[in-house]
Amino acid sequence: MGTVKLFGGIEGGGTKFNYVVGTSPDDLRREERFPTTTPDETLDKAIRFFKQAEADFGKLSALGIACFGPLDPNPASPTFGFILPTTKPNWSNTNVVGALKSAFDIPIAFDTDVNGAAFGEWTWGAAQGLDTFIYLTIGTGIGGGALVNGKLLHGLIHPEMGHIRLPHDSQRDLFEGICPFHKDCFEGLASGPAIEKRWGQKAQTLPPEHPAWDLEAHYIALAFASYIMTLSPQRIILGGGVSGQKFLFPMIRDKVKEILNTYVQSPAVGGNIDEYIIPPALGTRSGMLGAIALAQSA
Amino acid sequence: MGTVKLFGGIEGGGTKFNYVVGTSPDDLRREERFPTTTPDETLDKAIRFFKQAEADFGKLSALGIACFGPLDPNPASPTFGFILPTTKPNWSNTNVVGALKSAFDIPIAFDTDVNGAAFGEWTWGAAQGLDTFIYLTIGTGIGGGALVNGKLLHGLIHPEMGHIRLPHDSQRDLFEGICPFHKDCFEGLASGPAIEKRWGQKAQTLPPEHPAWDLEAHYIALAFASYIMTLSPQRIILGGGVSGQKFLFPMIRDKVKEILNTYVQSPAVGGNIDEYIIPPALGTRSGMLGAIALAQSA
Repeated sequence: MGTVKLFGGIEGGGTKFNYVVGTSPDDLRREERFPTTTPDETLDKAIRFFKQAEADFGKLSALGIACFGPLDPNPASPTFGFILPTTKPNWSNTNVVGALKSAFDIPIAFDTDVNGAAFGEWTWGAAQGLDTFIYLTIGTGIGGGALVNGKLLHGLIHPEMGHIRLPHDSQRDLFEGICPFHKDCFEGLASGPAIEKRWGQKAQTLPPEHPAWDLEAHYIALAFASYIMTLSPQRIILGGGVSGQKFLFPMIRDKVKEILNTYVQSPAVGGNIDEYIIPPALGTRSGMLGAIALAQSA
Repeated sequence: MGTVKLFGGIEGGGTKFNYVVGTSPDDLRREERFPTTTPDETLDKAIRFFKQAEADFGKLSALGIACFGPLDPNPASPTFGFILPTTKPNWSNTNVVGALKSAFDIPIAFDTDVNGAAFGEWTWGAAQGLDTFIYLTIGTGIGGGALVNGKLLHGLIHPEMGHIRLPHDSQRDLFEGICPFHKDCFEGLASGPAIEKRWGQKAQTLPPEHPAWDLEAHYIALAFASYIMTLSPQRIILGGGVSGQKFLFPMIRDKVKEILNTYVQSPAVGGNIDEYIIPPALGTRSGMLGAIALAQSA
Protein backbone atom coordinates (compact mmCIF):
# COMPACT_ATOMS: atom_id res chain seq x y z
CA MET A 1 0.00 0.00 0.00
CA GLY A 2 2.73 2.45 0.95
CA THR A 3 4.36 2.05 -2.46
CA VAL A 4 1.62 3.82 -4.46
CA LYS A 5 3.01 7.26 -5.25
CA LEU A 6 0.83 10.32 -4.90
CA PHE A 7 1.21 13.17 -7.39
CA GLY A 8 0.02 16.74 -7.60
CA GLY A 9 -1.01 18.46 -10.81
CA ILE A 10 -1.68 22.06 -11.78
CA GLU A 11 -3.43 22.98 -15.01
CA GLY A 12 -2.89 26.71 -15.24
CA GLY A 13 -5.05 28.61 -17.70
CA GLY A 14 -5.62 32.28 -18.37
CA THR A 15 -9.08 32.22 -16.76
CA LYS A 16 -8.86 29.36 -14.27
CA PHE A 17 -6.40 27.11 -12.49
CA ASN A 18 -7.18 23.47 -11.74
CA TYR A 19 -5.41 21.72 -8.88
CA VAL A 20 -5.55 17.95 -8.57
CA VAL A 21 -4.04 15.22 -6.43
CA GLY A 22 -4.04 11.52 -7.20
CA THR A 23 -2.18 8.46 -8.34
CA SER A 24 -3.80 7.93 -11.76
CA PRO A 25 -6.94 8.93 -13.72
CA ASP A 26 -8.91 6.25 -11.84
CA ASP A 27 -7.70 7.43 -8.48
CA LEU A 28 -7.98 11.20 -8.23
CA ARG A 29 -8.26 12.06 -4.54
CA ARG A 30 -9.19 15.72 -4.78
CA GLU A 31 -9.73 18.40 -7.41
CA GLU A 32 -10.30 22.12 -7.08
CA ARG A 33 -10.74 24.98 -9.49
CA PHE A 34 -9.94 28.65 -8.86
CA PRO A 35 -10.25 31.69 -11.09
CA THR A 36 -6.90 33.02 -12.28
CA THR A 37 -6.29 36.22 -10.29
CA THR A 38 -2.84 37.56 -9.39
CA PRO A 39 0.14 35.20 -9.45
CA ASP A 40 0.62 35.52 -5.66
CA GLU A 41 -2.96 34.68 -4.85
CA THR A 42 -3.31 31.93 -7.46
CA LEU A 43 -0.07 30.18 -6.51
CA ASP A 44 -0.70 30.61 -2.75
CA LYS A 45 -4.01 28.83 -3.26
CA ALA A 46 -2.16 26.02 -5.00
CA ILE A 47 0.28 25.70 -2.12
CA ARG A 48 -2.51 25.60 0.44
CA PHE A 49 -4.40 23.04 -1.64
CA PHE A 50 -1.41 20.69 -1.86
CA LYS A 51 -0.45 21.21 1.83
CA GLN A 52 -3.95 20.20 2.89
CA ALA A 53 -3.86 17.25 0.50
CA GLU A 54 -0.57 16.09 2.02
CA ALA A 55 -2.10 16.37 5.51
CA ASP A 56 -5.07 14.27 4.40
CA PHE A 57 -3.50 11.73 2.00
CA GLY A 58 0.25 11.71 2.65
CA LYS A 59 3.34 13.17 1.01
CA LEU A 60 3.40 14.04 -2.69
CA SER A 61 6.17 12.43 -4.74
CA ALA A 62 6.25 15.12 -7.44
CA LEU A 63 4.33 18.00 -8.96
CA GLY A 64 3.44 18.57 -12.60
CA ILE A 65 2.51 21.99 -13.92
CA ALA A 66 0.89 22.48 -17.34
CA CYS A 67 0.56 26.21 -17.73
CA PHE A 68 -0.45 28.93 -20.16
CA GLY A 69 2.52 30.55 -21.84
CA PRO A 70 4.73 31.73 -23.23
CA LEU A 71 6.97 30.07 -20.66
CA ASP A 72 10.43 28.62 -20.21
CA PRO A 73 10.32 24.79 -20.03
CA ASN A 74 14.09 24.29 -20.30
CA PRO A 75 15.52 22.96 -16.99
CA ALA A 76 19.00 24.13 -18.05
CA SER A 77 17.88 27.75 -18.46
CA PRO A 78 18.21 30.40 -15.72
CA THR A 79 14.53 31.30 -16.25
CA PHE A 80 13.29 27.70 -16.12
CA GLY A 81 9.84 27.62 -14.55
CA PHE A 82 9.02 31.24 -15.39
CA ILE A 83 6.16 32.60 -17.42
CA LEU A 84 7.78 34.88 -20.01
CA PRO A 85 6.52 38.37 -20.86
CA THR A 86 2.82 37.94 -21.62
CA THR A 87 -0.19 40.10 -22.41
CA LYS A 88 -1.93 38.54 -19.37
CA PRO A 89 -1.78 41.38 -16.78
CA ASN A 90 0.52 40.78 -13.77
CA TRP A 91 1.82 37.40 -14.94
CA SER A 92 4.90 38.45 -16.93
CA ASN A 93 8.10 36.98 -15.48
CA THR A 94 6.31 35.00 -12.77
CA ASN A 95 8.50 32.25 -11.30
CA VAL A 96 5.83 29.54 -11.10
CA VAL A 97 8.14 26.64 -10.33
CA GLY A 98 10.07 28.72 -7.81
CA ALA A 99 6.90 29.53 -5.86
CA LEU A 100 5.95 25.86 -5.61
CA LYS A 101 9.53 24.76 -4.98
CA SER A 102 9.75 27.04 -1.92
CA ALA A 103 6.88 25.08 -0.36
CA PHE A 104 7.53 21.56 -1.68
CA ASP A 105 11.03 20.17 -1.98
CA ILE A 106 10.09 17.55 -4.58
CA PRO A 107 10.65 17.21 -8.35
CA ILE A 108 8.51 19.66 -10.33
CA ALA A 109 7.80 19.24 -14.04
CA PHE A 110 6.83 22.36 -15.97
CA ASP A 111 5.49 22.61 -19.49
CA THR A 112 2.90 24.36 -21.61
CA ASP A 113 -0.79 23.62 -21.07
CA VAL A 114 -0.95 22.07 -24.54
CA ASN A 115 2.15 19.93 -24.10
CA GLY A 116 0.59 18.82 -20.82
CA ALA A 117 -2.66 17.89 -22.57
CA ALA A 118 -0.67 16.09 -25.28
CA PHE A 119 1.18 14.15 -22.59
CA GLY A 120 -2.08 13.23 -20.88
CA GLU A 121 -3.52 11.91 -24.16
CA TRP A 122 -0.30 10.01 -24.81
CA THR A 123 -0.25 8.43 -21.36
CA TRP A 124 -3.95 7.53 -21.01
CA GLY A 125 -5.88 8.81 -24.02
CA ALA A 126 -6.08 8.97 -27.79
CA ALA A 127 -2.34 9.06 -28.55
CA GLN A 128 -1.14 5.96 -26.75
CA GLY A 129 1.61 4.17 -28.64
CA LEU A 130 2.33 7.05 -31.07
CA ASP A 131 5.71 8.71 -31.23
CA THR A 132 4.79 11.85 -33.16
CA PHE A 133 1.45 13.66 -32.86
CA ILE A 134 -0.14 17.05 -32.20
CA TYR A 135 -2.66 18.18 -29.60
CA LEU A 136 -4.37 21.41 -30.64
CA THR A 137 -6.85 23.42 -28.62
CA ILE A 138 -9.19 26.06 -30.03
CA GLY A 139 -11.00 28.19 -27.49
CA THR A 140 -10.19 31.65 -26.14
CA GLY A 141 -6.90 31.21 -27.97
CA ILE A 142 -5.36 28.56 -30.19
CA GLY A 143 -2.39 26.55 -29.02
CA GLY A 144 -0.65 23.36 -30.02
CA GLY A 145 1.55 20.90 -28.20
CA ALA A 146 3.35 17.95 -29.69
CA LEU A 147 5.24 14.82 -28.93
CA VAL A 148 7.90 14.14 -31.58
CA ASN A 149 10.15 11.11 -31.73
CA GLY A 150 8.74 10.04 -28.38
CA LYS A 151 9.42 13.26 -26.45
CA LEU A 152 7.51 16.48 -25.86
CA LEU A 153 8.52 19.14 -28.37
CA HIS A 154 10.30 22.23 -27.07
CA GLY A 155 13.03 23.02 -29.57
CA LEU A 156 13.89 26.71 -29.42
CA ILE A 157 11.34 27.43 -26.63
CA HIS A 158 8.05 25.73 -27.44
CA PRO A 159 5.69 25.79 -30.43
CA GLU A 160 3.14 28.57 -30.91
CA MET A 161 0.99 26.75 -33.42
CA GLY A 162 -1.93 29.13 -33.14
CA HIS A 163 0.07 31.90 -34.75
CA ILE A 164 0.89 30.45 -38.16
CA ARG A 165 -0.28 32.49 -41.15
CA LEU A 166 -2.92 31.08 -43.47
CA PRO A 167 -4.28 32.13 -46.84
CA HIS A 168 -6.93 34.67 -45.88
CA ASP A 169 -9.49 34.90 -48.63
CA SER A 170 -10.54 38.49 -48.14
CA GLN A 171 -13.24 38.18 -50.79
CA ARG A 172 -15.03 35.46 -48.87
CA ASP A 173 -14.05 36.71 -45.42
CA LEU A 174 -13.82 40.46 -44.91
CA PHE A 175 -13.04 40.06 -41.20
CA GLU A 176 -9.58 41.41 -40.58
CA GLY A 177 -8.58 39.22 -37.62
CA ILE A 178 -8.05 39.99 -33.95
CA CYS A 179 -4.57 38.79 -32.99
CA PRO A 180 -2.82 41.76 -31.35
CA PHE A 181 0.51 40.51 -32.74
CA HIS A 182 -0.37 39.20 -36.19
CA LYS A 183 -3.94 40.30 -36.90
CA ASP A 184 -5.06 37.54 -39.30
CA CYS A 185 -2.97 34.59 -38.16
CA PHE A 186 -4.83 31.33 -37.42
CA GLU A 187 -5.75 32.45 -33.89
CA GLY A 188 -6.71 35.88 -35.17
CA LEU A 189 -9.15 34.34 -37.64
CA ALA A 190 -10.45 31.22 -35.92
CA SER A 191 -10.34 31.46 -32.10
CA GLY A 192 -13.60 31.65 -30.15
CA PRO A 193 -13.35 35.45 -29.74
CA ALA A 194 -12.60 35.81 -33.49
CA ILE A 195 -15.78 33.88 -34.34
CA GLU A 196 -17.77 35.99 -31.90
CA LYS A 197 -16.43 39.26 -33.26
CA ARG A 198 -16.90 38.26 -36.91
CA TRP A 199 -20.50 37.10 -36.55
CA GLY A 200 -21.67 39.27 -33.64
CA GLN A 201 -22.66 36.38 -31.43
CA LYS A 202 -20.95 33.80 -29.27
CA ALA A 203 -19.65 30.75 -31.16
CA GLN A 204 -21.64 28.30 -29.08
CA THR A 205 -24.89 30.08 -30.04
CA LEU A 206 -24.31 29.67 -33.79
CA PRO A 207 -26.34 26.74 -35.20
CA PRO A 208 -24.56 23.98 -37.18
CA GLU A 209 -25.95 25.25 -40.50
CA HIS A 210 -24.56 28.77 -39.95
CA PRO A 211 -21.89 29.70 -42.55
CA ALA A 212 -19.54 30.48 -39.64
CA TRP A 213 -18.79 26.79 -39.32
CA ASP A 214 -17.87 26.13 -42.92
CA LEU A 215 -15.41 29.03 -42.71
CA GLU A 216 -14.12 27.81 -39.35
CA ALA A 217 -13.58 24.28 -40.69
CA HIS A 218 -11.83 25.82 -43.72
CA TYR A 219 -9.28 27.69 -41.58
CA ILE A 220 -8.76 24.73 -39.26
CA ALA A 221 -8.17 22.46 -42.27
CA LEU A 222 -5.66 24.90 -43.78
CA ALA A 223 -3.77 24.97 -40.49
CA PHE A 224 -3.88 21.18 -40.14
CA ALA A 225 -2.54 20.76 -43.68
CA SER A 226 0.40 23.01 -42.79
CA TYR A 227 1.06 21.07 -39.60
CA ILE A 228 0.91 17.79 -41.52
CA MET A 229 3.37 19.04 -44.14
CA THR A 230 5.74 20.46 -41.52
CA LEU A 231 5.67 18.08 -38.58
CA SER A 232 4.25 14.90 -40.16
CA PRO A 233 2.11 13.92 -37.16
CA GLN A 234 0.67 10.41 -36.91
CA ARG A 235 -2.51 11.93 -35.47
CA ILE A 236 -4.02 15.32 -34.64
CA ILE A 237 -6.13 15.60 -31.50
CA LEU A 238 -8.41 18.64 -31.50
CA GLY A 239 -9.64 19.85 -28.10
CA GLY A 240 -10.86 23.09 -26.56
CA GLY A 241 -14.25 24.75 -26.52
CA VAL A 242 -14.73 25.04 -30.27
CA SER A 243 -14.11 21.30 -30.70
CA GLY A 244 -17.20 20.73 -28.57
CA GLN A 245 -19.07 21.28 -31.87
CA LYS A 246 -18.80 17.65 -32.96
CA PHE A 247 -20.23 18.33 -36.44
CA LEU A 248 -16.99 20.20 -37.18
CA PHE A 249 -14.89 17.03 -37.29
CA PRO A 250 -16.23 15.52 -40.55
CA MET A 251 -16.11 18.98 -42.16
CA ILE A 252 -12.46 19.42 -41.16
CA ARG A 253 -11.50 15.92 -42.31
CA ASP A 254 -13.06 16.41 -45.78
CA LYS A 255 -11.36 19.76 -46.21
CA VAL A 256 -7.96 18.46 -45.11
CA LYS A 257 -8.19 15.72 -47.74
CA GLU A 258 -9.15 18.30 -50.36
CA ILE A 259 -6.27 20.60 -49.45
CA LEU A 260 -3.63 17.84 -49.32
CA ASN A 261 -5.00 16.62 -52.65
CA THR A 262 -3.44 13.13 -52.30
CA TYR A 263 0.02 14.60 -51.80
CA VAL A 264 0.71 12.89 -48.47
CA GLN A 265 0.60 9.22 -49.39
CA SER A 266 -0.61 7.60 -46.21
CA PRO A 267 -3.92 5.81 -45.71
CA ALA A 268 -4.08 7.72 -42.41
CA VAL A 269 -5.01 10.92 -44.27
CA GLY A 270 -7.03 9.11 -46.93
CA GLY A 271 -9.70 6.53 -46.21
CA ASN A 272 -8.84 6.31 -42.53
CA ILE A 273 -8.86 10.03 -41.80
CA ASP A 274 -11.71 9.51 -39.31
CA GLU A 275 -9.09 8.07 -36.96
CA TYR A 276 -6.53 10.75 -37.79
CA ILE A 277 -8.30 13.95 -36.74
CA ILE A 278 -10.13 13.19 -33.53
CA PRO A 279 -11.34 14.70 -30.27
CA PRO A 280 -9.41 14.04 -27.04
CA ALA A 281 -10.20 10.69 -25.42
CA LEU A 282 -9.90 12.37 -22.02
CA GLY A 283 -12.45 15.03 -22.99
CA THR A 284 -11.88 18.26 -21.09
CA ARG A 285 -9.55 16.50 -18.64
CA SER A 286 -6.51 16.07 -20.93
CA GLY A 287 -4.68 19.00 -19.37
CA MET A 288 -5.39 18.17 -15.76
CA LEU A 289 -4.50 14.52 -16.21
CA GLY A 290 -1.53 15.60 -18.29
CA ALA A 291 -0.25 17.55 -15.28
CA ILE A 292 -0.38 14.30 -13.27
CA ALA A 293 1.43 12.49 -16.09
CA LEU A 294 4.09 15.23 -16.14
CA ALA A 295 4.51 14.80 -12.38
CA GLN A 296 4.99 11.06 -12.84
CA SER A 297 7.74 11.73 -15.36
CA ALA A 298 9.45 14.42 -13.23
CA MET B 1 44.56 0.64 -40.25
CA GLY B 2 42.12 -2.17 -40.86
CA THR B 3 39.70 -0.70 -38.34
CA VAL B 4 38.78 2.39 -40.37
CA LYS B 5 35.37 1.64 -41.80
CA LEU B 6 34.58 2.49 -45.39
CA PHE B 7 31.09 3.73 -46.28
CA GLY B 8 29.15 4.26 -49.46
CA GLY B 9 26.71 7.11 -50.03
CA ILE B 10 24.09 7.84 -52.67
CA GLU B 11 22.51 11.26 -53.03
CA GLY B 12 19.61 10.62 -55.36
CA GLY B 13 18.02 13.65 -56.98
CA GLY B 14 15.46 14.08 -59.70
CA THR B 15 18.06 15.24 -62.22
CA LYS B 16 21.28 13.62 -61.00
CA PHE B 17 22.59 10.93 -58.70
CA ASN B 18 25.85 11.34 -56.77
CA TYR B 19 27.74 8.28 -55.63
CA VAL B 20 30.52 8.58 -53.08
CA VAL B 21 32.82 6.32 -51.08
CA GLY B 22 34.87 7.32 -48.07
CA THR B 23 35.38 7.25 -44.35
CA SER B 24 34.62 10.92 -43.52
CA PRO B 25 34.38 14.34 -45.25
CA ASP B 26 38.18 14.61 -45.13
CA ASP B 27 38.68 11.19 -46.64
CA LEU B 28 36.41 10.76 -49.64
CA ARG B 29 38.04 8.17 -51.86
CA ARG B 30 35.87 8.52 -54.97
CA GLU B 31 32.88 10.49 -56.19
CA GLU B 32 30.86 10.20 -59.35
CA ARG B 33 27.81 11.92 -60.72
CA PHE B 34 25.29 10.50 -63.20
CA PRO B 35 22.16 11.98 -64.73
CA THR B 36 18.96 10.40 -63.37
CA THR B 37 17.63 8.17 -66.15
CA THR B 38 15.55 5.03 -65.57
CA PRO B 39 15.65 3.34 -62.16
CA ASP B 40 17.31 0.23 -63.62
CA GLU B 41 20.08 2.14 -65.32
CA THR B 42 20.63 4.62 -62.48
CA LEU B 43 20.77 1.94 -59.78
CA ASP B 44 22.89 -0.42 -61.93
CA LYS B 45 25.41 2.38 -62.26
CA ALA B 46 25.42 2.74 -58.48
CA ILE B 47 26.06 -0.97 -58.03
CA ARG B 48 28.91 -0.95 -60.54
CA PHE B 49 30.40 2.14 -58.89
CA PHE B 50 30.41 0.55 -55.43
CA LYS B 51 31.63 -2.85 -56.73
CA GLN B 52 34.60 -1.14 -58.36
CA ALA B 53 35.21 0.89 -55.20
CA GLU B 54 35.23 -2.30 -53.13
CA ALA B 55 37.73 -3.85 -55.55
CA ASP B 56 39.99 -0.79 -55.25
CA PHE B 57 39.59 0.20 -51.57
CA GLY B 58 38.12 -2.80 -49.72
CA LYS B 59 34.73 -3.86 -48.42
CA LEU B 60 32.06 -1.30 -47.56
CA SER B 61 30.64 -1.47 -44.03
CA ALA B 62 27.30 0.13 -44.87
CA LEU B 63 25.45 2.21 -47.46
CA GLY B 64 23.49 5.41 -46.93
CA ILE B 65 20.90 6.59 -49.44
CA ALA B 66 19.45 10.12 -49.33
CA CYS B 67 16.89 10.19 -52.10
CA PHE B 68 14.19 12.33 -53.69
CA GLY B 69 10.71 11.36 -52.55
CA PRO B 70 8.06 10.73 -51.62
CA LEU B 71 9.53 7.56 -50.19
CA ASP B 72 9.07 5.08 -47.39
CA PRO B 73 11.80 5.47 -44.72
CA ASN B 74 10.15 3.20 -42.13
CA PRO B 75 12.20 -0.02 -41.68
CA ALA B 76 9.11 -1.73 -40.19
CA SER B 77 7.01 -1.10 -43.30
CA PRO B 78 6.58 -3.63 -46.13
CA THR B 79 7.48 -0.90 -48.61
CA PHE B 80 10.58 0.29 -46.73
CA GLY B 81 13.18 1.47 -49.20
CA PHE B 82 10.69 2.19 -51.99
CA ILE B 83 10.03 5.43 -53.77
CA LEU B 84 6.27 5.98 -53.51
CA PRO B 85 4.05 7.04 -56.43
CA THR B 86 5.73 10.13 -57.87
CA THR B 87 5.31 12.48 -60.80
CA LYS B 88 8.88 11.59 -61.84
CA PRO B 89 8.36 9.28 -64.85
CA ASN B 90 9.33 5.60 -64.32
CA TRP B 91 10.30 5.98 -60.67
CA SER B 92 6.98 5.24 -58.93
CA ASN B 93 7.22 2.18 -56.66
CA THR B 94 10.94 1.65 -57.28
CA ASN B 95 12.54 -0.56 -54.62
CA VAL B 96 15.77 1.40 -54.22
CA VAL B 97 17.03 -0.37 -51.11
CA GLY B 98 16.09 -3.77 -52.57
CA ALA B 99 18.18 -3.13 -55.68
CA LEU B 100 21.24 -2.25 -53.63
CA LYS B 101 20.60 -5.00 -51.07
CA SER B 102 20.66 -7.64 -53.84
CA ALA B 103 24.24 -6.63 -54.61
CA PHE B 104 25.57 -5.69 -51.15
CA ASP B 105 24.62 -7.66 -48.08
CA ILE B 106 25.38 -4.83 -45.66
CA PRO B 107 23.24 -2.42 -43.61
CA ILE B 108 21.53 0.20 -45.80
CA ALA B 109 20.10 3.45 -44.42
CA PHE B 110 17.40 5.15 -46.49
CA ASP B 111 15.92 8.58 -46.02
CA THR B 112 14.83 11.66 -47.91
CA ASP B 113 17.41 13.85 -49.64
CA VAL B 114 16.60 16.67 -47.23
CA ASN B 115 16.77 14.52 -44.11
CA GLY B 116 20.11 13.31 -45.45
CA ALA B 117 21.33 16.88 -45.90
CA ALA B 118 20.07 17.73 -42.41
CA PHE B 119 21.97 14.75 -41.02
CA GLY B 120 25.12 15.80 -42.84
CA GLU B 121 24.90 19.31 -41.39
CA TRP B 122 24.22 17.85 -37.94
CA THR B 123 27.19 15.49 -38.12
CA TRP B 124 29.78 17.81 -39.66
CA GLY B 125 28.22 21.16 -40.48
CA ALA B 126 26.09 24.03 -39.21
CA ALA B 127 23.79 22.06 -36.91
CA GLN B 128 26.30 20.31 -34.69
CA GLY B 129 25.09 20.04 -31.11
CA LEU B 130 21.46 20.99 -31.85
CA ASP B 131 18.61 18.63 -31.12
CA THR B 132 15.87 20.30 -33.16
CA PHE B 133 16.45 22.11 -36.46
CA ILE B 134 15.31 22.32 -40.07
CA TYR B 135 17.21 21.96 -43.34
CA LEU B 136 15.30 23.50 -46.23
CA THR B 137 16.27 23.47 -49.87
CA ILE B 138 14.86 25.77 -52.54
CA GLY B 139 15.71 24.88 -56.12
CA THR B 140 13.74 22.94 -58.72
CA GLY B 141 11.41 22.13 -55.85
CA ILE B 142 11.21 23.02 -52.18
CA GLY B 143 11.79 20.39 -49.52
CA GLY B 144 12.52 20.32 -45.84
CA GLY B 145 14.13 17.80 -43.54
CA ALA B 146 14.40 18.01 -39.78
CA LEU B 147 16.01 16.56 -36.75
CA VAL B 148 13.70 16.78 -33.72
CA ASN B 149 14.55 15.73 -30.20
CA GLY B 150 17.82 14.36 -31.52
CA LYS B 151 16.41 12.12 -34.26
CA LEU B 152 15.51 12.59 -37.91
CA LEU B 153 11.82 13.42 -38.30
CA HIS B 154 9.60 10.91 -40.08
CA GLY B 155 6.33 10.83 -38.14
CA LEU B 156 3.52 9.71 -40.42
CA ILE B 157 5.85 9.31 -43.46
CA HIS B 158 8.13 12.31 -43.74
CA PRO B 159 7.58 16.07 -43.92
CA GLU B 160 6.67 17.81 -47.18
CA MET B 161 7.54 21.30 -46.04
CA GLY B 162 7.52 22.79 -49.52
CA HIS B 163 3.78 22.30 -49.79
CA ILE B 164 2.45 24.42 -46.91
CA ARG B 165 0.00 27.14 -47.88
CA LEU B 166 0.93 30.78 -47.41
CA PRO B 167 -0.99 34.02 -47.58
CA HIS B 168 -0.88 34.81 -51.29
CA ASP B 169 -1.31 38.52 -51.79
CA SER B 170 -2.94 38.45 -55.20
CA GLN B 171 -2.89 42.24 -55.44
CA ARG B 172 0.88 42.36 -55.18
CA ASP B 173 1.48 39.04 -56.92
CA LEU B 174 -0.87 38.06 -59.73
CA PHE B 175 1.09 34.89 -60.47
CA GLU B 176 -1.16 31.94 -59.78
CA GLY B 177 1.48 29.37 -58.81
CA ILE B 178 2.74 26.23 -60.52
CA CYS B 179 2.38 23.34 -58.08
CA PRO B 180 0.47 20.60 -59.95
CA PHE B 181 -1.10 19.52 -56.63
CA HIS B 182 -1.72 22.80 -54.80
CA LYS B 183 -1.11 25.58 -57.31
CA ASP B 184 -0.04 28.41 -54.96
CA CYS B 185 1.55 26.51 -52.08
CA PHE B 186 5.06 27.61 -51.02
CA GLU B 187 6.72 25.53 -53.77
CA GLY B 188 4.16 26.70 -56.30
CA LEU B 189 5.02 30.33 -55.56
CA ALA B 190 8.71 30.31 -54.67
CA SER B 191 10.61 27.43 -56.30
CA GLY B 192 13.16 28.17 -59.01
CA PRO B 193 10.71 27.26 -61.81
CA ALA B 194 8.02 29.46 -60.18
CA ILE B 195 10.39 32.44 -60.19
CA GLU B 196 11.30 31.75 -63.81
CA LYS B 197 7.70 31.45 -64.93
CA ARG B 198 6.55 34.55 -63.01
CA TRP B 199 9.28 36.85 -64.31
CA GLY B 200 10.00 35.27 -67.69
CA GLN B 201 13.67 34.64 -67.02
CA LYS B 202 15.77 32.23 -65.04
CA ALA B 203 16.14 33.09 -61.35
CA GLN B 204 19.93 33.20 -61.49
CA THR B 205 19.77 35.88 -64.23
CA LEU B 206 17.68 38.28 -62.11
CA PRO B 207 19.86 41.02 -60.56
CA PRO B 208 19.75 41.58 -56.76
CA GLU B 209 17.73 44.80 -57.13
CA HIS B 210 14.98 43.06 -59.14
CA PRO B 211 11.60 43.04 -57.30
CA ALA B 212 11.56 39.25 -57.73
CA TRP B 213 13.86 38.94 -54.74
CA ASP B 214 11.85 41.02 -52.31
CA LEU B 215 8.82 38.87 -53.15
CA GLU B 216 10.88 35.69 -52.87
CA ALA B 217 12.24 36.72 -49.47
CA HIS B 218 8.68 37.57 -48.42
CA TYR B 219 7.37 34.08 -49.21
CA ILE B 220 10.39 32.38 -47.68
CA ALA B 221 9.97 34.44 -44.50
CA LEU B 222 6.26 33.58 -44.28
CA ALA B 223 7.12 29.89 -44.59
CA PHE B 224 9.92 30.14 -42.02
CA ALA B 225 7.58 31.88 -39.56
CA SER B 226 5.14 28.99 -39.93
CA TYR B 227 7.88 26.43 -39.41
CA ILE B 228 9.10 28.33 -36.34
CA MET B 229 5.59 28.44 -34.84
CA THR B 230 4.96 24.76 -35.59
CA LEU B 231 8.24 22.94 -35.06
CA SER B 232 10.19 25.42 -32.90
CA PRO B 233 13.55 24.77 -34.58
CA GLN B 234 16.76 25.98 -32.92
CA ARG B 235 18.09 26.88 -36.37
CA ILE B 236 16.99 26.90 -40.01
CA ILE B 237 19.58 26.00 -42.63
CA LEU B 238 18.65 27.17 -46.11
CA GLY B 239 20.31 25.39 -49.01
CA GLY B 240 19.61 24.71 -52.69
CA GLY B 241 20.15 26.77 -55.81
CA VAL B 242 18.09 29.80 -54.78
CA SER B 243 20.07 30.12 -51.55
CA GLY B 244 23.15 30.72 -53.69
CA GLN B 245 21.86 34.33 -53.84
CA LYS B 246 23.57 35.36 -50.61
CA PHE B 247 21.86 38.78 -50.51
CA LEU B 248 18.61 36.93 -49.78
CA PHE B 249 19.66 35.96 -46.25
CA PRO B 250 19.52 39.42 -44.61
CA MET B 251 16.23 40.11 -46.42
CA ILE B 252 14.71 36.87 -45.11
CA ARG B 253 15.97 37.49 -41.56
CA ASP B 254 14.47 40.99 -41.42
CA LYS B 255 11.14 39.78 -42.75
CA VAL B 256 10.97 36.84 -40.33
CA LYS B 257 11.48 39.25 -37.43
CA GLU B 258 8.74 41.50 -38.80
CA ILE B 259 6.29 38.61 -39.23
CA LEU B 260 6.94 37.08 -35.80
CA ASN B 261 6.57 40.59 -34.34
CA THR B 262 8.36 39.69 -31.09
CA TYR B 263 5.96 36.82 -30.43
CA VAL B 264 8.63 34.13 -30.13
CA GLN B 265 10.65 35.30 -27.16
CA SER B 266 14.08 33.97 -27.91
CA PRO B 267 17.19 36.05 -28.64
CA ALA B 268 17.80 33.52 -31.43
CA VAL B 269 15.08 35.14 -33.53
CA GLY B 270 15.79 38.65 -32.29
CA GLY B 271 19.23 40.23 -32.18
CA ASN B 272 21.01 36.97 -32.99
CA ILE B 273 18.92 36.01 -36.00
CA ASP B 274 22.06 36.17 -38.19
CA GLU B 275 23.05 32.86 -36.61
CA TYR B 276 19.54 31.43 -36.82
CA ILE B 277 18.83 31.48 -40.56
CA ILE B 278 22.02 30.45 -42.28
CA PRO B 279 23.42 28.72 -45.35
CA PRO B 280 24.71 25.14 -45.07
CA ALA B 281 28.26 24.87 -43.71
CA LEU B 282 28.88 21.99 -46.12
CA GLY B 283 27.78 24.09 -49.09
CA THR B 284 26.40 21.94 -51.88
CA ARG B 285 27.82 18.80 -50.27
CA SER B 286 25.36 18.48 -47.35
CA GLY B 287 23.36 15.76 -49.08
CA MET B 288 26.28 13.69 -50.31
CA LEU B 289 28.06 13.85 -46.96
CA GLY B 290 24.72 13.25 -45.29
CA ALA B 291 24.47 9.96 -47.19
CA ILE B 292 27.83 8.95 -45.69
CA ALA B 293 26.60 10.03 -42.24
CA LEU B 294 23.43 7.95 -42.74
CA ALA B 295 25.61 4.96 -43.68
CA GLN B 296 27.64 5.40 -40.49
CA SER B 297 24.43 5.31 -38.45
CA ALA B 298 22.99 2.30 -40.30
